[in-house]
Amino acid sequence: MGAVMEKSEHPVAGNGLLDRRALLRSALLSAGFAAAGVGAAQADDSIGADAPEWMKTPGRPFSAYGVPSKWQEKVQRVVTVAPGRPGTGVSRTPLQLLEGTITPAGLHFERHHNGVPDIDPSRHELFIHGMVRRPLAFSVDALQRYPLESQIHFVECAGNSGAFSAPQPAQITAGELNGLLSCSEWTGVRLAVLLEEAGVSKDAKWIIAEGADAAAMSRSIPLEKCMDDAMVVFYQNGEAIRPEQGFPMRLLLPGFEGNMNVKWLRRLFVTDEPMDARDETSHYTELMPGGKARQFMFLEGAKSAILKPSFGMSMKGPGLYEISGLAWSGAGRVSKVEVSADGGKSWALAALNAPVLPKALTRFRLPWKWDGQPSTLMSRATDETGGTQPKRADWIALYAPGQGYHFNGIQGWSVEADGTVKNVYV
Amino acid sequence: MGAVMEKSEHPVAGNGLLDRRALLRSALLSAGFAAAGVGAAQADDSIGADAPEWMKTPGRPFSAYGVPSKWQEKVQRVVTVAPGRPGTGVSRTPLQLLEGTITPAGLHFERHHNGVPDIDPSRHELFIHGMVRRPLAFSVDALQRYPLESQIHFVECAGNSGAFSAPQPAQITAGELNGLLSCSEWTGVRLAVLLEEAGVSKDAKWIIAEGADAAAMSRSIPLEKCMDDAMVVFYQNGEAIRPEQGFPMRLLLPGFEGNMNVKWLRRLFVTDEPMDARDETSHYTELMPGGKARQFMFLEGAKSAILKPSFGMSMKGPGLYEISGLAWSGAGRVSKVEVSADGGKSWALAALNAPVLPKALTRFRLPWKWDGQPSTLMSRATDETGGTQPKRADWIALYAPGQGYHFNGIQGWSVEADGTVKNVYV
Repeated sequence: MGAVMEKSEHPVAGNGLLDRRALLRSALLSAGFAAAGVGAAQADDSIGADAPEWMKTPGRPFSAYGVPSKWQEKVQRVVTVAPGRPGTGVSRTPLQLLEGTITPAGLHFERHHNGVPDIDPSRHELFIHGMVRRPLAFSVDALQRYPLESQIHFVECAGNSGAFSAPQPAQITAGELNGLLSCSEWTGVRLAVLLEEAGVSKDAKWIIAEGADAAAMSRSIPLEKCMDDAMVVFYQNGEAIRPEQGFPMRLLLPGFEGNMNVKWLRRLFVTDEPMDARDETSHYTELMPGGKARQFMFLEGAKSAILKPSFGMSMKGPGLYEISGLAWSGAGRVSKVEVSADGGKSWALAALNAPVLPKALTRFRLPWKWDGQPSTLMSRATDETGGTQPKRADWIALYAPGQGYHFNGIQGWSVEADGTVKNVYV
Repeated sequence: MGAVMEKSEHPVAGNGLLDRRALLRSALLSAGFAAAGVGAAQADDSIGADAPEWMKTPGRPFSAYGVPSKWQEKVQRVVTVAPGRPGTGVSRTPLQLLEGTITPAGLHFERHHNGVPDIDPSRHELFIHGMVRRPLAFSVDALQRYPLESQIHFVECAGNSGAFSAPQPAQITAGELNGLLSCSEWTGVRLAVLLEEAGVSKDAKWIIAEGADAAAMSRSIPLEKCMDDAMVVFYQNGEAIRPEQGFPMRLLLPGFEGNMNVKWLRRLFVTDEPMDARDETSHYTELMPGGKARQFMFLEGAKSAILKPSFGMSMKGPGLYEISGLAWSGAGRVSKVEVSADGGKSWALAALNAPVLPKALTRFRLPWKWDGQPSTLMSRATDETGGTQPKRADWIALYAPGQGYHFNGIQGWSVEADGTVKNVYV
C-alpha cells in the first residue's frame, strides 16, 4: 500500500500538512484508521445472534421536546461565577466537543451580571425614546408583526480568550480558553426600521440600550451601527430565544463585542453622547501601557482556534489526522485560514466549509500526517477586509500587563511525543 | 399619514400584496401596529418605580445545559402513535410556532417503527459488506477521524402532508399538516469516502441500509446516490445527533424521503438488486389508479407552505401583515416562491431569506395589506431544476384514492372576515 499512499499524499506545508483533496482519495485504512475486517458470519444479511441488545427490545417512546443522549452528559457549559454571587459570571461553550458552526441553544455561552430574569413576555415592552420625534413602546406581539429576517451570526464576549494575557499558558480546554463564543441563526426585525418609525433627530449620535435584568445592564452604541445591520431578535435557531440569551428579545450587533448585544432588551434611549455606563467604564475597556483605559473598541477582530486536536485530547500514535477548528471576524467574512504544523516556519491554506457567511463562525479543516515527533500547531485567520491575527507577543505589547479584552493573537498547541496536547505561547 | 402610506405602498399582485422594499420604508405605525406613545414619566432615563419586578431581584444562576423559557411550554412536537404501540408513529415539528430555517434538535420531527434505541456509542459499529473488495467495520471513534464536512439540509418524511389526500380539508395546524419536516446543520463523513475504501464491485447497483433499532429498519438505496452527496452524520446543529434522530449516527441522503435516511445506522450491504424490505413494499410506495403500487420514488419535490397566517391564528383586524412560510425541494435550491392573496388569480414573488441553500428549508416573506374581506392565500415554490407544485386536484388525479405519499400540491388558507384562518383546497 505504501506506493499508493505516497502517490496520493501531496504535502502543502512542513511537518506533514497534506492537500485535502488528496486525502479524500487516499487509502485511509492503511494509515492506521481503526477499521477491522468483517468475518463471513457477520457479512451475511441476517441480524443473527450477535445483534446488539438494543435491537432485541422495543425502544423508548416519543417525546414532546427532546434532550441529548445520556451518553453525552459531559457535553456541558463550563460555569465560573464570582464568589457568593451565583448570578454574576460566565459559562463557556465546550467548543472542542462540538462540530459544524451552529451552537445548540442549550450550550450557547452565558455572561450575566445579575442572573437570568424570568420575564413574562405578555408584560414585556420595548421603549424607544429620547431624541426622537415620536417615543414608542412595543409589546412583543407588536414587534413580531414587523418584517422579519434571519441571519447566522456569532456572538463573542469581549473577554473571550482573556487567559492568553497571563504570563504562562493555561492548561485548560479550547472551550475554557475560547468558549465565550457561540453562533446561531437569529430572527428578528432590523433596528433601523423601528428607529425610522420613531423618527430619530438629526443631532442624535448614540443609543443607550438597557436590559430588563436586575443589573439593568446598559451600553452606549453608535447610532451608525444601529442604522446598519443591528437587529432586535426574538428567535434563536428556530425557536424563541432562550432565557439565558435574552428571552423574550435581545439586541444583536453583528461583529460587536457580546456585552453590547444587550439581552432582555427593554429600552433604547436615543441621545447625542455616550452615557459612560458601569459596563463601559469599569469593564469592557482596554488598559493601555500608560495607565489610560481605551473605551469603545467594539469590533471583534479576525481570530481562529484549532479545536482538534486540543488540550485534553490524546493522539493515538502516528498517522493521518484531520486538524479542524473555527475562524471568525466581526468585520465580515473569513477569507482564509492558514495552518502551520512546524511552529510557524511554514503555512498551508485550510479548506473552509461552505457557505462562508459574514460575521459567522467558519469551520476549517486540513489533513495532517503526524510522524510521532513533537510538533507545534498554529492557525491564523484573515478576513475580507484584510484584518488578520498578530503574534501573541505583538498583541501583548500593545497593552498594560493583564489586559485581556479583545485578544485575537495567534494560538498554538504543542503535540508531545506521547500524544498529549498542551497550550503553548507562539 | 394617509398620503405617505399610499406613496410607499406598491401593489405587486391582487388583494393587497405589496412590494417588500416599500414596506420597510412605510409608516407601519399608522397602519395599525400596536405601538403606543411613551409618556414623559417613562421617557426619562431612570428605571423608576415602574420597573418590572424581574429587575428588582437577582435572576436565576447559570446552567450547564439550557432549556426553553417556561413561557414556551406549548411549543412542543405533536405526537401520534399506533394504538397499543407507543414506539410506532410520528411526532411533528410545530412549524407555525418557529421562525428562520434551522429546527432546534429538541423539536425535530420523529418517525419511529419500534421506538428509540438506547445505543452505547462505545459498542456501536458500522459494517460495510456485500459486494466489496474489503468488508469493513468502523467504531464511532474510527469514523470520526475521517475528513468531516457540514451541510445544512432538510429531512422530510415521505408521508408528510398526507392529510391533503383526504376528501375534506383537515382543520389542523400547519405543523400538524406539514411538520414531518425539519432542517439541521449535519456534520459527518461523505459515504463515498467509506465506499471507496471498501472497494465497491463494478457490478454493484444498490446498498441496503439497516438501522440498529428493534425494527431493524431497512431500505434499498441506489448506489449512485450513495456515491453522490450521501453522508454518515454524527452531529446535528453542532452537538451529537439526538437519540430520536439516530444517535450515534444516521444516514443522510439530501433530498430523498426521510425513511431512507436510516437512523442508528448499523449496516450498509452492497448488492446488485434492491431487497424489497418491508418499508419499501408495505409502506412508502405510491398506490396508482390501476391498483398497482409504484416503488422507489425517492425524491421530495418542490413544495411550500404559508405558516403565518395559518390555522389556529387570528388576524387582528384589517391592516398590514407579513405573510411568511417555508419552501424547499429535494432537487436543489428554491429559485422562486410565488404568493397569491386572491385564490390564484394573481401571483407575486416573495422575498427569499439568504443564503438560499440546496436541499435546505428557505424562508419566504411578503407584505400583505388585508382589507378585512374574506381572502384565499396560496404559495407555489419552484426549484432550480424547474420543478414546481401542481394544483392539488391535478396531483390527486395521478393516484388511487387516499394515496398520501409525496404530496406537493399547492396549499391554501382562507382568511375569514372575522380573522380566523381555515385550511381550504385550492
